[in-house]
Amino acid sequence: MGRSPGTEEIKEYSDFLNRLADAAAQTTLPMFKKPLEVTNKGRKLGLDYDPVTQADRQAEDAIRQLIKGRYPDHNILGEEHGAEQNSSSDKDRQYTWVIDPIDGTRAYICGIPTWGTLIALNDGERPFIGMLDQPYLKERYMGTSKGSYLNNDAIYSRTCMEISQATVSTTDPTQFFSTPEDAIAFGRVADKAQLVRNGYDCYAYAMVAAGFMDVVIESGLEAYDIQALIPIIEGAGGMITGWDGGTASNGGQVVASATAKLHEQVLDLLNS
Amino acid sequence: MGRSPGTEEIKEYSDFLNRLADAAAQTTLPMFKKPLEVTNKGRKLGLDYDPVTQADRQAEDAIRQLIKGRYPDHNILGEEHGAEQNSSSDKDRQYTWVIDPIDGTRAYICGIPTWGTLIALNDGERPFIGMLDQPYLKERYMGTSKGSYLNNDAIYSRTCMEISQATVSTTDPTQFFSTPEDAIAFGRVADKAQLVRNGYDCYAYAMVAAGFMDVVIESGLEAYDIQALIPIIEGAGGMITGWDGGTASNGGQVVASATAKLHEQVLDLLNS
Repeated sequence: MGRSPGTEEIKEYSDFLNRLADAAAQTTLPMFKKPLEVTNKGRKLGLDYDPVTQADRQAEDAIRQLIKGRYPDHNILGEEHGAEQNSSSDKDRQYTWVIDPIDGTRAYICGIPTWGTLIALNDGERPFIGMLDQPYLKERYMGTSKGSYLNNDAIYSRTCMEISQATVSTTDPTQFFSTPEDAIAFGRVADKAQLVRNGYDCYAYAMVAAGFMDVVIESGLEAYDIQALIPIIEGAGGMITGWDGGTASNGGQVVASATAKLHEQVLDLLNS
Repeated sequence: MGRSPGTEEIKEYSDFLNRLADAAAQTTLPMFKKPLEVTNKGRKLGLDYDPVTQADRQAEDAIRQLIKGRYPDHNILGEEHGAEQNSSSDKDRQYTWVIDPIDGTRAYICGIPTWGTLIALNDGERPFIGMLDQPYLKERYMGTSKGSYLNNDAIYSRTCMEISQATVSTTDPTQFFSTPEDAIAFGRVADKAQLVRNGYDCYAYAMVAAGFMDVVIESGLEAYDIQALIPIIEGAGGMITGWDGGTASNGGQVVASATAKLHEQVLDLLNS
């Protein structure tokens, strides 16, 4: 068991996360909403290679380089380059940086600013600090045990207690769920919700944390898709778990809610 | 039959559209992503009245007032306040302003910046100038017979000729289509597309015009949902019609494509 990170440590890491986000944005932002090549008629060509992979890799490279320089004995888990394990001499500090340089690559390709750079720091038990940066919107969400913030303003999830009054979101109701059973379970929640919205990727979790939506339900997630969002949801007063009520840290089936009472209702519907 | 508006007239109306967009944004932007009330615990309350209707109505009021002051003999058709018909003495100039102050009200409520202020000017035959303003993103799309622009930059739709290479979008595949037949027709296109994205309202048409997506398919639209987008799509080099290949101006079933060849394929699939 490691000790819980204290205030000074959290301050140090949140400052460093700001540096990482700035570095990632230097790669992701110039390539967003830009054509790759322009014909002599001024018409833009279609995508003939994968710009997102390029932006993804370059952004993750930049993030990894900064982490290795500053915290050489920390582990790194990233979408593009996998896991780098370092044998630490200090068993209390098996820290792992969990990185998705561009979460929502399809939105990125389509010119839609609902993608984000996700970075969490996990202390071996849980992600204790998480960040979602959306540089096109100039919105940086950060969550810790001290609360959640959009830029410098504290954010709070809504007080919604009833699914009949809730706005529910998922990335894609027709393609996202990995099994028909998952889609049917989502449908049980969607049928009772006041409003259902699709297609917002990681940005949907930020909208739950900031008080504009109430529930996000997804499945088939990886650890790097979700760890950064856990402290943001929890620090804003919301709840986030697996569909089984256990940790969301490993990805898979995940549900986030604005309140504990609403979360309980949603879990009941998903599992009924 | 009226004469076609000339260059000077188009310049006059595009300048005026900028004024209308600025006036609408003064209402829509301050109410976007803002809580309505904050409890003494600092928690945001849920929506206990309809802020969107308020923002919608106030924005449309502001737009109507400016139009009546400047062009008192023009007609106005708006989402919130219906049609105002003026008997013009000049039969060549039965102009109608077609207004949706906030297209994408659900996105607006949810804090997602894919809503837009839509304004078209119709000369009695067709909308010859159209604008989509997204003030949170500081993106203003304008289309005329002289071309389409994002802010001051010319925009062009992609050269995509094949549905197998196309990105296709609709607002909501599970709820938007008014009949199962419409949803099945959409499915025939979606099955052949490279990528399908949902949930972007009017902003999806802007992304087709700007070269980041290739097809938008919707049904159940009103005239004010679509007229502003027609000059933007056409001025960027794309095509926009009803599913039957006729005018899209009356709303209903609408499809927009990046190229004429792609449009033909999509119409064939919708109607097969």
